[in-house]
Amino acid sequence: MTGIAFDPDLRDMRFVIYEQLDVESMSRIPLYADFNRELYDMVLDEAARFARETLYPINGKGDRAGCKLEGGKVTTPPGYREAWQAFRESGWVSPGTPQEYGGQGLPAPVALAVGEIFSAAATAFAMYPGLARAAADLLIHAGDGWMRSTVVHRLISGEWGGTMCLTEPQAGSAVGDNRTQARPIGEGKYLIEGTKMFISAGDHDLTDNIVHLVLARTPDAPPGIKGLSLFLVPKFRFDPESGALGEPNDVVCSGIEHKMGINGNATCVLNFGDTGDCQGWLIGEEGQGIQIMFHMMNEARIGVGLQGLAVGGIAYRFALAYARDRIQGTRIEDLKDALAPRVAIIEHPDVRRMLLWMKAHAEGIRSLLYTTAMYHDLSLNGPEAEREGYKQLVELLTPICKAHSSDVGFEITEQAVQVFGGYGYCGEYPVEQYLRDSKIFSIYEGTNGIQALDLLGRKVAMGGGILLMRYMQEINEILEAARARPSLAGEIGDVEKARDLLGATTFQLAGFGAAGDRAYPVLQATPYLNLFGTVVLAVELLKQATVADRALEAGGASLADADARFYRDKVRTARFYVKTVLPRARSLAKQIESGDRSPIEAEF
Amino acid sequence: MTGIAFDPDLRDMRFVIYEQLDVESMSRIPLYADFNRELYDMVLDEAARFARETLYPINGKGDRAGCKLEGGKVTTPPGYREAWQAFRESGWVSPGTPQEYGGQGLPAPVALAVGEIFSAAATAFAMYPGLARAAADLLIHAGDGWMRSTVVHRLISGEWGGTMCLTEPQAGSAVGDNRTQARPIGEGKYLIEGTKMFISAGDHDLTDNIVHLVLARTPDAPPGIKGLSLFLVPKFRFDPESGALGEPNDVVCSGIEHKMGINGNATCVLNFGDTGDCQGWLIGEEGQGIQIMFHMMNEARIGVGLQGLAVGGIAYRFALAYARDRIQGTRIEDLKDALAPRVAIIEHPDVRRMLLWMKAHAEGIRSLLYTTAMYHDLSLNGPEAEREGYKQLVELLTPICKAHSSDVGFEITEQAVQVFGGYGYCGEYPVEQYLRDSKIFSIYEGTNGIQALDLLGRKVAMGGGILLMRYMQEINEILEAARARPSLAGEIGDVEKARDLLGATTFQLAGFGAAGDRAYPVLQATPYLNLFGTVVLAVELLKQATVADRALEAGGASLADADARFYRDKVRTARFYVKTVLPRARSLAKQIESGDRSPIEAEF
Repeated sequence: MTGIAFDPDLRDMRFVIYEQLDVESMSRIPLYADFNRELYDMVLDEAARFARETLYPINGKGDRAGCKLEGGKVTTPPGYREAWQAFRESGWVSPGTPQEYGGQGLPAPVALAVGEIFSAAATAFAMYPGLARAAADLLIHAGDGWMRSTVVHRLISGEWGGTMCLTEPQAGSAVGDNRTQARPIGEGKYLIEGTKMFISAGDHDLTDNIVHLVLARTPDAPPGIKGLSLFLVPKFRFDPESGALGEPNDVVCSGIEHKMGINGNATCVLNFGDTGDCQGWLIGEEGQGIQIMFHMMNEARIGVGLQGLAVGGIAYRFALAYARDRIQGTRIEDLKDALAPRVAIIEHPDVRRMLLWMKAHAEGIRSLLYTTAMYHDLSLNGPEAEREGYKQLVELLTPICKAHSSDVGFEITEQAVQVFGGYGYCGEYPVEQYLRDSKIFSIYEGTNGIQALDLLGRKVAMGGGILLMRYMQEINEILEAARARPSLAGEIGDVEKARDLLGATTFQLAGFGAAGDRAYPVLQATPYLNLFGTVVLAVELLKQATVADRALEAGGASLADADARFYRDKVRTARFYVKTVLPRARSLAKQIESGDRSPIEAEF
Repeated sequence: MTGIAFDPDLRDMRFVIYEQLDVESMSRIPLYADFNRELYDMVLDEAARFARETLYPINGKGDRAGCKLEGGKVTTPPGYREAWQAFRESGWVSPGTPQEYGGQGLPAPVALAVGEIFSAAATAFAMYPGLARAAADLLIHAGDGWMRSTVVHRLISGEWGGTMCLTEPQAGSAVGDNRTQARPIGEGKYLIEGTKMFISAGDHDLTDNIVHLVLARTPDAPPGIKGLSLFLVPKFRFDPESGALGEPNDVVCSGIEHKMGINGNATCVLNFGDTGDCQGWLIGEEGQGIQIMFHMMNEARIGVGLQGLAVGGIAYRFALAYARDRIQGTRIEDLKDALAPRVAIIEHPDVRRMLLWMKAHAEGIRSLLYTTAMYHDLSLNGPEAEREGYKQLVELLTPICKAHSSDVGFEITEQAVQVFGGYGYCGEYPVEQYLRDSKIFSIYEGTNGIQALDLLGRKVAMGGGILLMRYMQEINEILEAARARPSLAGEIGDVEKARDLLGATTFQLAGFGAAGDRAYPVLQATPYLNLFGTVVLAVELLKQATVADRALEAGGASLADADARFYRDKVRTARFYVKTVLPRARSLAKQIESGDRSPIEAEF
């Protein structure tokens, strides 16, 4: 393997967390009263150390070895069990879950940064705690008392694992077509029967037990999503009071997928009740399955966006280090001088363009995701009067967090491969794995096409467009702050125009719908999400440039060299994005306003 | 594996070959006097049958098994040797090489179609004959008499293989930094010493011998590319007259790369002369190495573009078949009716948008590549007076063929994965392999960044812009023809504007250069190539729509249903591209004209 070290961008994370979001101010919230920057810094440093020493070394090996299914049992790649042991002993399963359940109880942006670091080091590995955490959070929200007391802390401690079982062979995006059956047998118990597929972490050897959260249909349930209920189905039965393990439940992993990436995480076909003896407990009430799942969806989707950031972000860091290291060719001025000194490829303008493109996108989505996570936190734990406003922003931004970050994350890995050249295509360096790993992010947890429909058809339409209005207000505040910085004068007008374009395009699409053309807005939902995401990143980067420019002025000559460079590059990054990426918004708007219905009319 | 059949788009190939390019008219050239449509059709049908029956079945298996290096010998995946035997017996190694050398001597567009079919079926496999063919073509052009008589027909018959050995560990894009040494020992022979890497098909068990074409430096050669000479270095020595094989030459494969894709083709590190006894023959004169290589470059680069088309094109076909097959969800009108009939996903507008996007791009680059190949053919074999004009177009379009087709081909595979959803990420269907295979195309045979420099720095600058002027004239002729079709009136104006934009942007970039800013045009070379490629595809699709619209009118009611559908969709495809993809040209032009130098100034 390469000599380039795993080196997540802690400087930029700290910039977002402290300088941009002022997470320290969250200490006013009683939940976070005991925390301070010193502690956050320690957490981040420790997470980075753990990731570097324990997780990154198993990432490539895990990819090559993959998971194995033998005799109905899944084994994770060599090194995973040891890493898991160390991981749970260090208390890393759930940095963000409240302390009363065994988590670290950190504010969301800090917890997210920890998640980014781990996912950057070993995405496939980080999915195991990710799913345990999601299951725990769901049970905290919707589970019975014993589920919270017996199951949650086992998930958070890493003693047990968790999964989300939605997809069936005939029911992917159309989750309402689930056929798995659940027949009540009394005492809140049901017999489960059906097949689930594409279940991440569906079986493995890391934990003593796994609790599957399974969507299924009770006997008299109505068709469609309203007839779905949610069940807790363990791999091994257990005593609800003590948690003591009993017999194996009738859950069998009948296959694992041969995938393009995330090979360290077993993607399973799970058969529930093949011998008619699979027991599960109802979570919440019958028919509430989708509602309960929906409650978790924002966090889960921000989580997938975070995977895009993590993998894309670290791919950028590797490309940057490689570009500094790899000697090839001469400076353009010396092209004709065969004896001119050879330079590192970071000297080549085309490579610099790729690097700044990657930097802008990685930092833009980092800003978006950390911010949205903080808003989510504040919508639950912030001052009562502000919660609704934050919730609106989270609702609107979630599909963008998921889809745009996953798309952008993948594109960054692609650019990273390109910077590495032939080496980028080979396993010697990690970037080809990052590309393969990251391709799944645009697919699972609701394909990006589904996110686009969610954005345009639900979120933007909601309450007569109130969410978008709320976000426009947010943009205006960011613009207002930027106006105080003369050095950003050249960018502000472009962002204003992009904001107006987003508004106008939204109205246009609504117009098509109002005129009775339901198909056209649906056709343009993905370009609309791309447009929205493109504008959002401009806003995020302008916000960052404002903070950085202020810091440059405030720090003056007393700034450390590295800090001054960092801030100056923040301003350049925003400028680059606004001048060279943001124009794409105009072309997307042109596409949307064209009214072209060719794809609908095509006969193929 | 899946139930979806390998089904290359013969209908579209025939459209380009007969209806658009009128390849039959090439029979006026003596070289092609004996050919006719019946024969071409037979060749295409046979190639498709061979690809379906013999090549496609080894594609997935070859990917999973990969090549092995044991005891300094490389073995290809199971099934490759048998396929190779059948392949060469059927005379498929070189459809385009003149018959006097054992090829089929087909006109370039037909030969290219055959190449597309094979590369679509098994890209990694098709690289073996591709490299043998390239080596043969080079020797036909620049080799001594005995090289042509002894070596070429063995390459074309598939008895021997060939490679191109340029890259060294320290010399990738900077080919002038080659260090491999060649010391003359008389009789045109040299002792070769050095290490080459990333050598595709560098060693394998398909052929009795392999001839490596090796760039190396003679003792008193000047530094840089001018000091490079080209050598024929065999794996086994042979008698130049009879071709009888002798001792192994001192060439050792010391490693093969673990790659993201094209695993059926061994990418080798080759050590020449480790024990000081590696013999090679000079090709041409000392110091002519790069010149000779350059002569082959256009064809080789069109060949890589063809790989992008082949893999992207077939990925589209698989996605289309899957979309027709896969049932999921209801029509949008029925969204709220849980009992509404479930439909194939091709009914969903977002899926149709992806499919038409893929179709437009695949057909656009097919048109571009076949056309450029025909121009290349005519520049060599056409009427004397027309050759220079064709050559100019080929020179200009080659970097676009290579870079834009490889980029677009990869993007199509990505969209195909997205259409397949979770299944697209799994090995059960072939699209995840297509994505992995196709990522190399933007890297080898000159990275796409290098292509952009070639386009802007050499081709567009050449002769005061004469090549671009020639192409503008070509665009104008295509527009003129389109103007005769009233149903294309809505698109013509957009293409005219795009043409003007391309011209204006070129002048702007030249202006930066003229004002002494050499770095800025280099910085914008890739966006410029992207702009150029975006406009070129609009022109190609408009040209196709013109032909199709004319055929619709001419055929009238007597057209077969499938043909009428095909032609109507051609018109829609052009419309879709012009209305929804071409606007991207404007955003790229904005980026280029911005003058933003942030990437150059960034401190990283």
